[in-house]
Amino acid sequence: MDTGRLITVEGTEGAGKSSALAVIRDWVTAHGGEPVVTREPGGTALGEELREVLLGHREAGMSAEAEVLLMFAARAEHVRTVIQPALQAGQWVICDRFTDASLAYQGGGRGLGIERVRALADWLLGDLQPGLTLWLDLPVATGLARAAGRSAPDRFESERARFFEAVRAAYAELANADPARIARVDATQSLARVGAAIETLLDEHYDD
Amino acid sequence: MDTGRLITVEGTEGAGKSSALAVIRDWVTAHGGEPVVTREPGGTALGEELREVLLGHREAGMSAEAEVLLMFAARAEHVRTVIQPALQAGQWVICDRFTDASLAYQGGGRGLGIERVRALADWLLGDLQPGLTLWLDLPVATGLARAAGRSAPDRFESERARFFEAVRAAYAELANADPARIARVDATQSLARVGAAIETLLDEHYDD
Repeated sequence: MDTGRLITVEGTEGAGKSSALAVIRDWVTAHGGEPVVTREPGGTALGEELREVLLGHREAGMSAEAEVLLMFAARAEHVRTVIQPALQAGQWVICDRFTDASLAYQGGGRGLGIERVRALADWLLGDLQPGLTLWLDLPVATGLARAAGRSAPDRFESERARFFEAVRAAYAELANADPARIARVDATQSLARVGAAIETLLDEHYDD
Repeated sequence: MDTGRLITVEGTEGAGKSSALAVIRDWVTAHGGEPVVTREPGGTALGEELREVLLGHREAGMSAEAEVLLMFAARAEHVRTVIQPALQAGQWVICDRFTDASLAYQGGGRGLGIERVRALADWLLGDLQPGLTLWLDLPVATGLARAAGRSAPDRFESERARFFEAVRAAYAELANADPARIARVDATQSLARVGAAIETLLDEHYDD
């Protein structure tokens, strides 16, 4: 199966993922493609239930292993019932967070280690990789300040800056290791400039 | 950590696991030990939530990978917060189903393969193994007939005889491969005889 049309958006809170998803969706539509926009954890009935389970435990916490296994359970269902069927039907799939988020959040942020989480990714997905991953990067303090302006903090917004520093460092490590797939976008720029940068990356990546 | 005092009970529906758990609990108490009786999936707040998620999807189903990842998420939390602390405190832990159930149900019954599930077990647990596993074995038709007499069929009771045949075959394969740990108990016998057989196995295994 060709996963070239699977585009994922990654980044810590306040990075502007929602705007980026809209820019990508519009780019795909403008180029005659049929975009499916989805998210993780979530994207299926099971995934949304598991998202609620994760949110419900944000106070009491759970072991990092349990958390990452839940993330991959949601991903398993999402890949089999949403992502693979859409790609096989020739659609484009634009996903708000994917495997890189597990590598960064549970591998980096929660300290399991990138390689330990990658073993789980290999177990489930084999070589199923996005065609392009846009990593919206900005300093942790900037992202937290932006996110603080919102009404409903989620599990990750309630965690501390040190945690996000570890997540950001893991994303940087992933991007450095795979520059052909993961493109860093400077998310400190204005929304318009971020959008323009994303369009340029899409044009270049898909030889438009 | 010494896992010798972790005793697990395995078997398909109707095999008499509840009675076996009571026999083991009484044996431990009679020998001056402090028994903790628990179950999988479940045994923690998270585990019970995930058990409900699994039951809620018994009609629509979910992918075998999602199911086994949920089982291991529940297990991760159960091991870290219940089983390991109890063993470290010198207690005995008697668990209604454990990793062998994932190997048999998802590996055998749902067709993922024992080795694929074992890779997940290795990822989470390393060499954490029960000291003794009692496999209550009986023909599938006998177990289903017994289970049919109950009021609330669960996910597994609602599945078909062919599924249970594959589960039973996987348990047999596991027991053959590790006879020092997994003891087969003939569960077609009367409850009293099954109980006596379990007591004999416990006496022998723990050199009583």
